[in-house]
Amino acid sequence: MPDPCVVVIFGASGDLTARKLLPALFNLRRAGLAPEETCVLGTARTDHSNAEFAEHMRAAVEEHSRIAPDEESWGSFADDLFYVSGDLSSDDTYRALRAKLEQIDAGHGTAGNRVWYLATAPRFFPAIADGIGKSGLLDSGGWHRLVVEKPFGSDLASACELNAVLNRTFSEDQIFRIDHYLGKETVQNLLVFRFANAIFEPIWNRRYVDHVQITVAEDMGVGSRGASYDQTGALRDVAQNHLLQLLALVAMEPPVSWDATSIRNEKVQVLRAVRRWPPSECGTLTARGQYEGYRQEKGVDPKSSTETFVAIEYFVDNWRWAGVPFYLRTGKAMAAKVTEIAIQFQRVPHLLFAKTAVEELEPNVLVLRIQPDEGISLTFGAKVPGHDVNVRTVDMEFDYESDFGSGTPEAYERLLQDCMLGDATLFTRADEIEEAWEVVEPVLRYWSGGGRPGTYAPGTWGPASSDELPGRDGRAWRNPSL
Amino acid sequence: MPDPCVVVIFGASGDLTARKLLPALFNLRRAGLAPEETCVLGTARTDHSNAEFAEHMRAAVEEHSRIAPDEESWGSFADDLFYVSGDLSSDDTYRALRAKLEQIDAGHGTAGNRVWYLATAPRFFPAIADGIGKSGLLDSGGWHRLVVEKPFGSDLASACELNAVLNRTFSEDQIFRIDHYLGKETVQNLLVFRFANAIFEPIWNRRYVDHVQITVAEDMGVGSRGASYDQTGALRDVAQNHLLQLLALVAMEPPVSWDATSIRNEKVQVLRAVRRWPPSECGTLTARGQYEGYRQEKGVDPKSSTETFVAIEYFVDNWRWAGVPFYLRTGKAMAAKVTEIAIQFQRVPHLLFAKTAVEELEPNVLVLRIQPDEGISLTFGAKVPGHDVNVRTVDMEFDYESDFGSGTPEAYERLLQDCMLGDATLFTRADEIEEAWEVVEPVLRYWSGGGRPGTYAPGTWGPASSDELPGRDGRAWRNPSL
Repeated sequence: MPDPCVVVIFGASGDLTARKLLPALFNLRRAGLAPEETCVLGTARTDHSNAEFAEHMRAAVEEHSRIAPDEESWGSFADDLFYVSGDLSSDDTYRALRAKLEQIDAGHGTAGNRVWYLATAPRFFPAIADGIGKSGLLDSGGWHRLVVEKPFGSDLASACELNAVLNRTFSEDQIFRIDHYLGKETVQNLLVFRFANAIFEPIWNRRYVDHVQITVAEDMGVGSRGASYDQTGALRDVAQNHLLQLLALVAMEPPVSWDATSIRNEKVQVLRAVRRWPPSECGTLTARGQYEGYRQEKGVDPKSSTETFVAIEYFVDNWRWAGVPFYLRTGKAMAAKVTEIAIQFQRVPHLLFAKTAVEELEPNVLVLRIQPDEGISLTFGAKVPGHDVNVRTVDMEFDYESDFGSGTPEAYERLLQDCMLGDATLFTRADEIEEAWEVVEPVLRYWSGGGRPGTYAPGTWGPASSDELPGRDGRAWRNPSL
Repeated sequence: MPDPCVVVIFGASGDLTARKLLPALFNLRRAGLAPEETCVLGTARTDHSNAEFAEHMRAAVEEHSRIAPDEESWGSFADDLFYVSGDLSSDDTYRALRAKLEQIDAGHGTAGNRVWYLATAPRFFPAIADGIGKSGLLDSGGWHRLVVEKPFGSDLASACELNAVLNRTFSEDQIFRIDHYLGKETVQNLLVFRFANAIFEPIWNRRYVDHVQITVAEDMGVGSRGASYDQTGALRDVAQNHLLQLLALVAMEPPVSWDATSIRNEKVQVLRAVRRWPPSECGTLTARGQYEGYRQEKGVDPKSSTETFVAIEYFVDNWRWAGVPFYLRTGKAMAAKVTEIAIQFQRVPHLLFAKTAVEELEPNVLVLRIQPDEGISLTFGAKVPGHDVNVRTVDMEFDYESDFGSGTPEAYERLLQDCMLGDATLFTRADEIEEAWEVVEPVLRYWSGGGRPGTYAPGTWGPASSDELPGRDGRAWRNPSL
């Protein structure tokens, strides 16, 4: 059980607070995973009384929580909700926060422990961190943890700069950079699958794996996020973080133990091994696209050249993975909403069924579905009944929900709980963030000179150039299992 | 499509003919897998006209065929059913068969091709083979294949002798020793599973496999087979053939190609590598049992010491399997009717989840279910949702019937079809039979001196001594998946 603490949310009137943070905090309390003493202090520019803030939050939790609040559970949670309004660049705001926090500590036994949650637009991060530091808010006598939402920087230089700014006030072990993908049970299960089973690790390498495909596809367009998305694009929004995180988890060496240092050390090692493409290769080893109609979306520049789809072929240059392509892709307005990792194994070296050619036999594919319908499937060849030896590809299936039920915690619940416990395993370390930016940096730079990406029809798997990535190697994207 | 031929069944009034052979021949014709010209000539001591024989066979097919005969399909099949009665030790019988066969050839275009099917008690095999040879029945101008039912001998000496006797008349490539287990699709699928998939072969060896369990369990007692079973026992009835055949298929090296010579060469190599236990080891490395009430079964000696259950631990002394125990067991009146092969892999070498001990993690098990509910399952560890890394064992499942439907051919259909096609892949070669007898011979000899086996209650998994086999190695029989 975590220590009692106050979760201070900057950007409390925003979307993330309403959709994710408050529902997660409510569910942690309700499930007994956070102590009864836990308090939440929201702050934003909007003027609110505590009661008004609580009323807003109740509506939010009712709309977005996976479990609806009842009178009793909401009542005790709402009693511990506080709000302070103010300008984040004004010292007055931090003074007001300090006064409120001391009052909360006195009344609730939160002992000066703080989770500082940056849920604002990233441009405010430096001012908030500095504000917390300068106003003496860290002298509260308890522990302090700073949660930083993505995007963490917009390129390598800005990420390094942000790290430096935050480090003026917080030490690295106080900084929790959140990538909500890592809070998903099925993402963590990837490590358990690899390292709690003796039979996969022996074939998890270049000798047996032909290539890896990682897909993070959304079926919707940018919706109401047009303005901010147009500044970001698919590469920064998903590839630099989610896709590379999934790559790191698939490709990493076995860590010494399940702790923040061991696991993050190994992830950094993988990212360091990812080959940086010289500009001359970026044209053939990456593909980008923009869905038709994107320029007409609300908030989007009518001449935008922002990509809504990106595919990149990477190599991990180490002993385990040398020569094995990792094909990564992500996009909006795709044919389906699906996240999966497909490990395609090599063909059999020799076929003893004279009537079937090696080429006709589909190779084994292990698919780790992250969402939806979390599960694992393994395709393999089985004999079709009859005298001749004909082989047909069939599936062995495991469905996460049917074994573990549907009520698994949301990623944000897990990550907030971890943060309160001081467990940074599932958060991204400074060097990890910087390596990931370094990996995508050449592509960013290469594209910055170009015009509009090729378009693709909404509801497809992206532009034709995407198919050329595996296609040039004699491979093809698989249709994600739905 | 096979050549037209006459299937001559010795022992045509017996159980096997009614239950298996005629239904199989009927279904092969009906499915178009045997030519319309195929004829069946039954022979036995009983006096029958062709019409009476056909009437008996119709009742048999109606009772035992997986597809009921209709007027049309039965009519055309019945027209090609013939019967000759006679004493199998009398030359007259073979003269009568010859006359009838020449008449059939003339009317049906069967061109002198013969399948000689020995469905009698084994003691008649020598007389029949000699009778066929001496009466010139092999000078028919077509091909000749001799199908021999198990048991093939009752020990090494008698098996060698029977091989020698049959070889006086038939060459080895004309002899088809049948083990109906090899006709099961799921048994053949074992080879496809191993050799049409690139991911299992790398872990199919002593480095990754902890041990193998092979179970052939029947839930019924001896029923009406008491008299013959009492002369045979579980070791001769099932272990020497079915269990060792399954062991050979699991353990064999990849054959050069899918043909009779390649596959049987590799099976012989495995059987040659199975360690022969010296008598001093037989007491601890084997277990036998007799179910309570067996001595009261019809036809059973009231002082019988025949075993109805046997378990043996074997080692395959070659590079692939050195040190890996193969636990084999079979019995009557067991807790369930089930045949399965379980490959249990070794534990993970290192566990990175501090809260779980290596010993608490169940190792991976690959289960190949032969019957019932043919399929494959793989147990593996998955993460239980929550902050702590707890691992629970779950299953990935493949169900043969749901992918390939329920109407798969019976083993006898497949094997008769193979025989008509001259494909001996799924039949046991002389050297294979002799090796298998040599493997069980020390156990047979060791037991021949002993008294009554320990008893076990019907509906259990056999005597307590069975549990000691894996138990002494710190292992346990798994409960077959039902």
